[in-house]
Amino acid sequence: MTINNWDIAIKGGIILTMSEKMDILRNHLIGIKDGKIIHIGNEEAAYNAGCTIEAGDCLVMPGLVNTHTHLPMVIFRGMADDLPLQDWLNNFIFPAEKRFINKEAVYSGALLAMAEMILSGTTTFCDGYFYEDAVGAAAIKAGMRAVIAQGFLDFPTPDNPEPAKKSVVAERFINRWHNAHPLISPALFCHAPYTCSPQTLIEIKKIARKTGVLYFTHLLENKDESQDIEKRYGRAPVQHLDNLGVLDGKTIAVHCNWLADRDLDILAERGVAVSHNPESSMKLAAGVAPVPALLARRITCGLGTDGCASNNNLDMFGEMNTAAKLHKIAAMDPTVMNAETVVTLATRGGAKTLGMADCIGSIEIGKDADIILLDMNKPHLTPLYNCYSQIVYAAGGADVKTSIIGGKIVMKDRKLLTIDIDEAMAEVRRIAKDIFPA
Amino acid sequence: MTINNWDIAIKGGIILTMSEKMDILRNHLIGIKDGKIIHIGNEEAAYNAGCTIEAGDCLVMPGLVNTHTHLPMVIFRGMADDLPLQDWLNNFIFPAEKRFINKEAVYSGALLAMAEMILSGTTTFCDGYFYEDAVGAAAIKAGMRAVIAQGFLDFPTPDNPEPAKKSVVAERFINRWHNAHPLISPALFCHAPYTCSPQTLIEIKKIARKTGVLYFTHLLENKDESQDIEKRYGRAPVQHLDNLGVLDGKTIAVHCNWLADRDLDILAERGVAVSHNPESSMKLAAGVAPVPALLARRITCGLGTDGCASNNNLDMFGEMNTAAKLHKIAAMDPTVMNAETVVTLATRGGAKTLGMADCIGSIEIGKDADIILLDMNKPHLTPLYNCYSQIVYAAGGADVKTSIIGGKIVMKDRKLLTIDIDEAMAEVRRIAKDIFPA
Repeated sequence: MTINNWDIAIKGGIILTMSEKMDILRNHLIGIKDGKIIHIGNEEAAYNAGCTIEAGDCLVMPGLVNTHTHLPMVIFRGMADDLPLQDWLNNFIFPAEKRFINKEAVYSGALLAMAEMILSGTTTFCDGYFYEDAVGAAAIKAGMRAVIAQGFLDFPTPDNPEPAKKSVVAERFINRWHNAHPLISPALFCHAPYTCSPQTLIEIKKIARKTGVLYFTHLLENKDESQDIEKRYGRAPVQHLDNLGVLDGKTIAVHCNWLADRDLDILAERGVAVSHNPESSMKLAAGVAPVPALLARRITCGLGTDGCASNNNLDMFGEMNTAAKLHKIAAMDPTVMNAETVVTLATRGGAKTLGMADCIGSIEIGKDADIILLDMNKPHLTPLYNCYSQIVYAAGGADVKTSIIGGKIVMKDRKLLTIDIDEAMAEVRRIAKDIFPA
Repeated sequence: MTINNWDIAIKGGIILTMSEKMDILRNHLIGIKDGKIIHIGNEEAAYNAGCTIEAGDCLVMPGLVNTHTHLPMVIFRGMADDLPLQDWLNNFIFPAEKRFINKEAVYSGALLAMAEMILSGTTTFCDGYFYEDAVGAAAIKAGMRAVIAQGFLDFPTPDNPEPAKKSVVAERFINRWHNAHPLISPALFCHAPYTCSPQTLIEIKKIARKTGVLYFTHLLENKDESQDIEKRYGRAPVQHLDNLGVLDGKTIAVHCNWLADRDLDILAERGVAVSHNPESSMKLAAGVAPVPALLARRITCGLGTDGCASNNNLDMFGEMNTAAKLHKIAAMDPTVMNAETVVTLATRGGAKTLGMADCIGSIEIGKDADIILLDMNKPHLTPLYNCYSQIVYAAGGADVKTSIIGGKIVMKDRKLLTIDIDEAMAEVRRIAKDIFPA
């Protein structure tokens, strides 16, 4: 008796739903059809599916959401580390971007980055960089869910030599991607209050509002940004942005390492979400975002890896691990940022940060089928008392076995099905040889 | 023409020697015989070996040295996290140790821990716990190089119900293991100045000196230890130990999160080495050891993971990553603890900490053959500009492909050759079921 006709069934395992109720289900069956989760029920039920994944020893959980990356920067991974920030930026990163960032390099870098992300359990990312059309094209190829945020600064950039035309560029970018692909959402990214004039910040936000897309900005990554902005505009950064009217429920502030109490009030009041990138901010000695305080005020937060020039990997498991530990030591309190909280940040919190809480971030009927399976049958994941602890404190990206995005299997038993990784690596190695001839 | 007769040859790859000169060799050949590295030369040379490992895309480096663990505690992995320290210790760890730690559990836990360590690139560890004979037996089975340090406290312990007899226990332990196995060195571990009386500290050190073995103690893991010891003995912890005469070149102090400047002087003067466990101390919100200051005073330092109840894994790659980032953010200086320094801590520094600098910690002729191969042909390790950066900031334990300890291959292409991991996991799961019936 054919009682249904699913595309994929996931049978057994331990299902960490990450729903509001944080249900953990055993001996269950997940049915996926047309990209959606349409059934969660008893394992014994009869069903008919194009493909059944036996979860066995696996933990079944929502795919991870990386709320902030600069994917094409994988081509600079490890090129210049352990340097003072300004030396790193001005003598390595900016010159390298000027010389080596073009549409082809962006595509190749982004595709390799997506291979790395899928292999480590990320199913949705938000990228901000230049040539975001190429990132979008790579995401379609990889089968990843993506927010692609075209970047803007006041000086000429590789993909926009005439800064004055940025409104046209922004509008055209949104129009090209609006409803172009079910997995891709376009967005706009003003680099930072110190690289974007008030006019740029306002102009781009205006287009974001008109087109209904997300608006990003780096904010208070470093301590000296406060003084700098206050000197230039007479207001501290958060007040400055608020005064420009660019803060609302569709604005995402990235980093936020140096928020004052009054800043938290403004972010909470305006409904601004925060992308927290602990590893990058530790490595660059930039600062520690007050995430426990943000969460206490019910400000939406997600985790992000930042780009590979400052991390240097895109493994969200590492990011969770670091987030939990960093805030404990910063607060000198081991109860801060417990494992459940951190896994929530990397899943449901990330989804909410990107305005996608209705479709991803948890395993619930009606949501899009973005699901990963973790192979728990490994020495470093044995024994298993607490799934959240195991994910945050013991697991790594390499433990992800299978990944489904939008109801499509993109990795099975650690084999990527959408990307030829040998080709993707060869392409980036070719680019790297131009950057640093061996 | 048979010009030599090696047991193992390693051909090609990139050899990170970790010698004092930090030589990096390409197109080379390593020859191993009777457990030692006896040849490092041009790849083209003729040779004869029982087995050739083609290093290909691999990074060939010294096996990692974990200077501080409590291996049997893997049976408590994830049992109780995110708790206040005293709650965690008194309501979970101590009662669980009392009920579930016996010789068999120690062996089973330690063996599973060794599977995890080999799989993540560790070739030498130093363990401090109860029933260290069982840890030694597991190390022989696993083929790992080990310092096994029998633990002492003033109250009855699972393996020593009569604290008054600790000297006898210590001496017998050393005698049993002295020269018993080429990979195993016995040592003595006084838990901490706050759990061991001056008499215990002195008595055990006396035996350590008499037998020529290493002497360990936890020291200043938490801030309140200073006040506590000063109140009891009229001196701060380091001065207290110095006054008791237990500090010398064969004493290793573990943690050292709260050293004052004068403490650094004492440690430097006495030649005490320090085991730094950043992840455990972050997770427990214990403190941050002043490692850059220790290194500036040329105090010997190594890295350690601590036990799995407080980390919760034994991956030294994660520990390196965290060490580099933690000190950058603590000092607000991105140049602190650069990648070379951190890899040195995990290899040569660890070897020196454990008094083994003459035999392990680098790939040099005459040293014991403790060597790991990292598979660099992976998206998250591409491109490769800087080997040290890649190891510290991008790689993980799962990237280790092959491991050789004392000239014996213990893991080949990620397959353990000395331990049946399914059996080892099943055994620990059986114990875990007693601890927390499902």
